[in-house]
Amino acid sequence: MARTVSGPAEESLNGLVTVLDFVRTHGSSTRPRLMHATGLTRAVVTQRVAELVEYGLLAEGELGPSTGGRAPRLLRFRADAGHLLVADLGATSVDIAVADLAGQIIVHVEEPYDIAAGADIVLDHVDELFQQCLAEADELPGKLWGIGIGLPGPVEFHSGRPIAPPIMPGWDRHPVRERFSDYDVPIWVDNDVNVMALGELRAGIAREHENVVFIKIGTGIGAGIVVEGRLHRGAQGCAGDVGHIQILDVDGDDVICRCGNVNCLEAFAGGAALGRDAERLAREGRSPFLARLLDEKGSLDARDLSRAAAHGDPASVELITNAGRLIGRMLAGIVNFFNPSLIVIGGGVAGAGDLLLATIRESVYRRSLPLATRDLVVKRSTLEGLGGVIGAAAMVTDELFSPHRLSQWLDAGTPVGRRELAAHR
Amino acid sequence: MARTVSGPAEESLNGLVTVLDFVRTHGSSTRPRLMHATGLTRAVVTQRVAELVEYGLLAEGELGPSTGGRAPRLLRFRADAGHLLVADLGATSVDIAVADLAGQIIVHVEEPYDIAAGADIVLDHVDELFQQCLAEADELPGKLWGIGIGLPGPVEFHSGRPIAPPIMPGWDRHPVRERFSDYDVPIWVDNDVNVMALGELRAGIAREHENVVFIKIGTGIGAGIVVEGRLHRGAQGCAGDVGHIQILDVDGDDVICRCGNVNCLEAFAGGAALGRDAERLAREGRSPFLARLLDEKGSLDARDLSRAAAHGDPASVELITNAGRLIGRMLAGIVNFFNPSLIVIGGGVAGAGDLLLATIRESVYRRSLPLATRDLVVKRSTLEGLGGVIGAAAMVTDELFSPHRLSQWLDAGTPVGRRELAAHR
Repeated sequence: MARTVSGPAEESLNGLVTVLDFVRTHGSSTRPRLMHATGLTRAVVTQRVAELVEYGLLAEGELGPSTGGRAPRLLRFRADAGHLLVADLGATSVDIAVADLAGQIIVHVEEPYDIAAGADIVLDHVDELFQQCLAEADELPGKLWGIGIGLPGPVEFHSGRPIAPPIMPGWDRHPVRERFSDYDVPIWVDNDVNVMALGELRAGIAREHENVVFIKIGTGIGAGIVVEGRLHRGAQGCAGDVGHIQILDVDGDDVICRCGNVNCLEAFAGGAALGRDAERLAREGRSPFLARLLDEKGSLDARDLSRAAAHGDPASVELITNAGRLIGRMLAGIVNFFNPSLIVIGGGVAGAGDLLLATIRESVYRRSLPLATRDLVVKRSTLEGLGGVIGAAAMVTDELFSPHRLSQWLDAGTPVGRRELAAHR
Repeated sequence: MARTVSGPAEESLNGLVTVLDFVRTHGSSTRPRLMHATGLTRAVVTQRVAELVEYGLLAEGELGPSTGGRAPRLLRFRADAGHLLVADLGATSVDIAVADLAGQIIVHVEEPYDIAAGADIVLDHVDELFQQCLAEADELPGKLWGIGIGLPGPVEFHSGRPIAPPIMPGWDRHPVRERFSDYDVPIWVDNDVNVMALGELRAGIAREHENVVFIKIGTGIGAGIVVEGRLHRGAQGCAGDVGHIQILDVDGDDVICRCGNVNCLEAFAGGAALGRDAERLAREGRSPFLARLLDEKGSLDARDLSRAAAHGDPASVELITNAGRLIGRMLAGIVNFFNPSLIVIGGGVAGAGDLLLATIRESVYRRSLPLATRDLVVKRSTLEGLGGVIGAAAMVTDELFSPHRLSQWLDAGTPVGRRELAAHR
């Protein structure tokens, strides 16, 4: 290996990342716009752009709008320089997709399955679906650059391993990354709620916000936290575990949560709890609507409860209202503590009806400080089921184009990085 | 003004801030250590150091330890290049200090006073104490570079104005900064709890931590939040207002809080509430110890309650234990949400005895998730009453040496910045 090419100084690396990030997140730009937005001088912008064009990450396009003088040439991020494989594993369904380097979804498949079937069976199936997705793509941009996976439980981000995940028996410390080592690309694994929060930040309603709480109400309840535009994972990487905050004013008997504690929020207001309570309403004769549904289906879930509430079934309305109030109380405390500008509500249960969202919103506004709610927006996710795969793609591109990894590619005193990047063109 | 000197590019500004921050926060360094720690090349480090020596911010010292070759020369941050005036205004006492540019306190005075006396009276008194402190200093390093003030209420950081502060009648939107415009230096004002959290981060037990919750238990209760080593102020700047999180399982009548809502945490567990409840215990004959104290003093506060508990007075022990449990419950929810590695407990009430801290700690560990508390440390502040002024000095130096302000000084295509800095030598 030649040792004569000296690695770029940290300063020029920073310039490179700044220019790349701006064009990448804006889709396209011009040199004058880059100068204006980044504060870099004309000479620095020109040089960094030339390098990024050489690496195959930027392309010169047509002439852009003139602002008086000669019209500047458009610079485009080469999203088609490669592709990514992403997976969002929920408790009861899996989403798999192929995305380009801008995180745009090219092919998407969704399937029901059971995460509790165990790591080997589930990951073999994910691999099959990866292959199926790749085969279905009409035209696959460039080579594979990376893989991103979201899991429904706590994940140690630096090792990519699930840590004692309550609903994933047999997955504790499973080497998820190593299962896909044949692909010979970098792989990132994170908690599904963190991944969904990233999706909202890059492509959803959180795009214009800096301080965001994304809350997923599915089988369980969890939160993804964005601080000044970046995901907050916390000291042990388990920030956002709001489903296991204890509810204190419980009427009647303690309820045991799947985490082993009693009276956790999700033991009352999560999807699994709502399904259980809906079946109880049906069996106890307190909801003829739910009783009919239970006869037909054999079991009930939170969607059935929402359907019953939408038909005006009083017992179902009460159950959902109570769940919304409990979630809203928890969020009110978080609003006082964290002062976000946006709360995004996502997940299967949240998507099932308007009543839950309305109750949560009312409870948050009533119980938080006026200053903290002055401009607070509480909205449902608009990404539908795609939030997870969009977020997983965002996780991969953020890591691929981080200063740390770019410096690994471009630096080290050898042109290996450049060759590696060039090979991806 | 000469226009021939072109401003430094953003890239070299970043290098300048990186080098300055490292030497500043470590007190001293060497060029090889700087290269190793910052990843900057030898050439860049040499140039940035030369510039910072020219500006009077770094000084060459004696020879440092050798690591084989020629011993490198020590570089020292010139903390003596200037001084700062800082004030920490509490509800019932004010701390004033002179600090050097490293945030070391040179002179400190503390006085009882009443924040409710109104903005003009209080700020005139602060100004007198500033003058008194300046007069008391044996040798004042350099010129005055900046002023920092902490206030016991919500502050809009960018304008430096208090916003509807509950215990500061007449202070709403008061132009605090403008009051000290005669000093002709930049002035920063923030909420006292944020300022104290900064103090812990720079000079207290939070120094080695990235994700910290500082909680002040004084007349009221508030939190300062540190995310990845930086203060988190939130979307409206009111993050950390945990004293007004509602307690839900209240036995008996609702308690009206000074904020206008009912059953806020600080209406039960804040210093004002504990003083009120201590007087009630004395009057109702439930604590002979407190009754004697009330006879002597005419009124009781949280310190009297702590003293009674330390003497084994059962009613006082119960009151403090109950307050600790309520604060601990609130913190347990925050631990699940935010996953800090450290909780620092400060403020006058927290300093009054061990019982409160022990109860808080027990409650946090019992009610938070095991993964989130695995390495969680819950400790009392060790800065005693100085946390506020140390933090206010840290706020000023962080802002003075921020990239934004350094660029204002050094940039603008003129050597004005250099001259301004040189004038401070």
